[in-house]
Amino acid sequence: MRILAIDSSGLVASVALLEDEDLIAEYTIHYKKTHSQTLLPMLEEIKKMTELDLHTIDAIAVAGGPGSFTGLRIGSATAKGLAQGLDKPIIEVPTLEGLAYQLYGTDALVCPLMDARRNQVYTGIYEFTSEDGRYELTTVMQGTCCLLPEVVSQLNGLGRPAILNGDGVQAYREELIKTLTVPYTFAPAHRRLQSAAAVGMLAFRYAVQGKLVTAAEHKPAYFRLSQAERELQEAREREHAEAARESLKEQSPVENPDKREAAQNEG
Amino acid sequence: MRILAIDSSGLVASVALLEDEDLIAEYTIHYKKTHSQTLLPMLEEIKKMTELDLHTIDAIAVAGGPGSFTGLRIGSATAKGLAQGLDKPIIEVPTLEGLAYQLYGTDALVCPLMDARRNQVYTGIYEFTSEDGRYELTTVMQGTCCLLPEVVSQLNGLGRPAILNGDGVQAYREELIKTLTVPYTFAPAHRRLQSAAAVGMLAFRYAVQGKLVTAAEHKPAYFRLSQAERELQEAREREHAEAARESLKEQSPVENPDKREAAQNEG
Repeated sequence: MRILAIDSSGLVASVALLEDEDLIAEYTIHYKKTHSQTLLPMLEEIKKMTELDLHTIDAIAVAGGPGSFTGLRIGSATAKGLAQGLDKPIIEVPTLEGLAYQLYGTDALVCPLMDARRNQVYTGIYEFTSEDGRYELTTVMQGTCCLLPEVVSQLNGLGRPAILNGDGVQAYREELIKTLTVPYTFAPAHRRLQSAAAVGMLAFRYAVQGKLVTAAEHKPAYFRLSQAERELQEAREREHAEAARESLKEQSPVENPDKREAAQNEG
Repeated sequence: MRILAIDSSGLVASVALLEDEDLIAEYTIHYKKTHSQTLLPMLEEIKKMTELDLHTIDAIAVAGGPGSFTGLRIGSATAKGLAQGLDKPIIEVPTLEGLAYQLYGTDALVCPLMDARRNQVYTGIYEFTSEDGRYELTTVMQGTCCLLPEVVSQLNGLGRPAILNGDGVQAYREELIKTLTVPYTFAPAHRRLQSAAAVGMLAFRYAVQGKLVTAAEHKPAYFRLSQAERELQEAREREHAEAARESLKEQSPVENPDKREAAQNEG
């Protein structure tokens, strides 16, 4: 089975080609260019270097979220386009699992932290359990969007050594150092950020479980509303509140006597 | 500090750019092309994508052996050329340490196995020790070239779980399964073979220790003679033996009486 894997959920753009759990190629860039400038040229480069006929690919694996809204949209659009054009399925791999899989084989808990701005992080807690001569990634705390102290409190409560990775480690470094009470390690550069090879490796597991979707079905898991959606929602809520106050004012001469009556009846 | 890292010691060609322990780019190909077809185009590609001025690099890190003779020569020649042209030092990172560093953070022993042909492997045994919130790679058994049963016997003797990686795992899979008596895991694809990012990360450690060499000083550590050198040595040994026999025949009429005399004197 041949899998093309893409991860553009964070600052990193990463493309990998895997075949039957062999890694044929991986290309990862962590540079100030936008994913729309990097992702397709990187894929084109791998295609050229490995003489790849895209029609021989069996599935497109994509980091399915959470992550940067723009990054996720570019990754998903690319995956959808390829899947549609080649008539192949998509395998959605949770971004946090891809990050955790970077620490394959550790006995420590793995806690990926992605900076979600507004003092929040996308995070989860994972561990590797050894089974029949291979390590399986298992979930200790489901992926979520929360305030940093909440996940720190979870880690401290678990009382086990932990390795933290993701761009949240740099963003919240000082706070982590101050508040973590368990032994911890910040993952080094080659294990810190996203890797399409890790996404592709997990995709083989998902494929075996039949977890494939069509291009039309695929959509990223954002975990929370985008800034635009949030502002729209807040504006609507303000409008509703405003409208409710207005309506309350209009109704008050009628409503108040009713309430007084009810109060009198209850008394 | 900006490091350009190269690993072409095995079947994989890998190039990475790192800056102050951040990974800027990594490009890895495991494909039937030769390293001379891949390594420089990959470097050129990273250069273009990250708008890299090669003169801003502080050092060239290279997987310094052991490994495939041709692969090591191409990697070293490339590193030497760059170092000479840019007037920068080279950091030689032992190939086996680079492989072991792929399993960063595991509690298991890490045993990289590189197929050295003729029933031999390049191998070593390593572990990660946790220190001040980071894991350091430490050597349990020095890198060497030996027969597979010798390293299996070492691992069995140590009695601890082990993760094995490198191309030797596939080459000697059945024999490993039959003879290992400790719990073991074969590393998955994204941790199985060489990675220039791992070489680059270790290079920062070597740089701190002042372990830099000039282009002229650098040479790969082959760990044993190449086939050509071996055949030359064997041919020379045969010639010497032949010459010794010839000289023995010529001397025999003189020598034998002496020996008989000596024997009589001793008797």
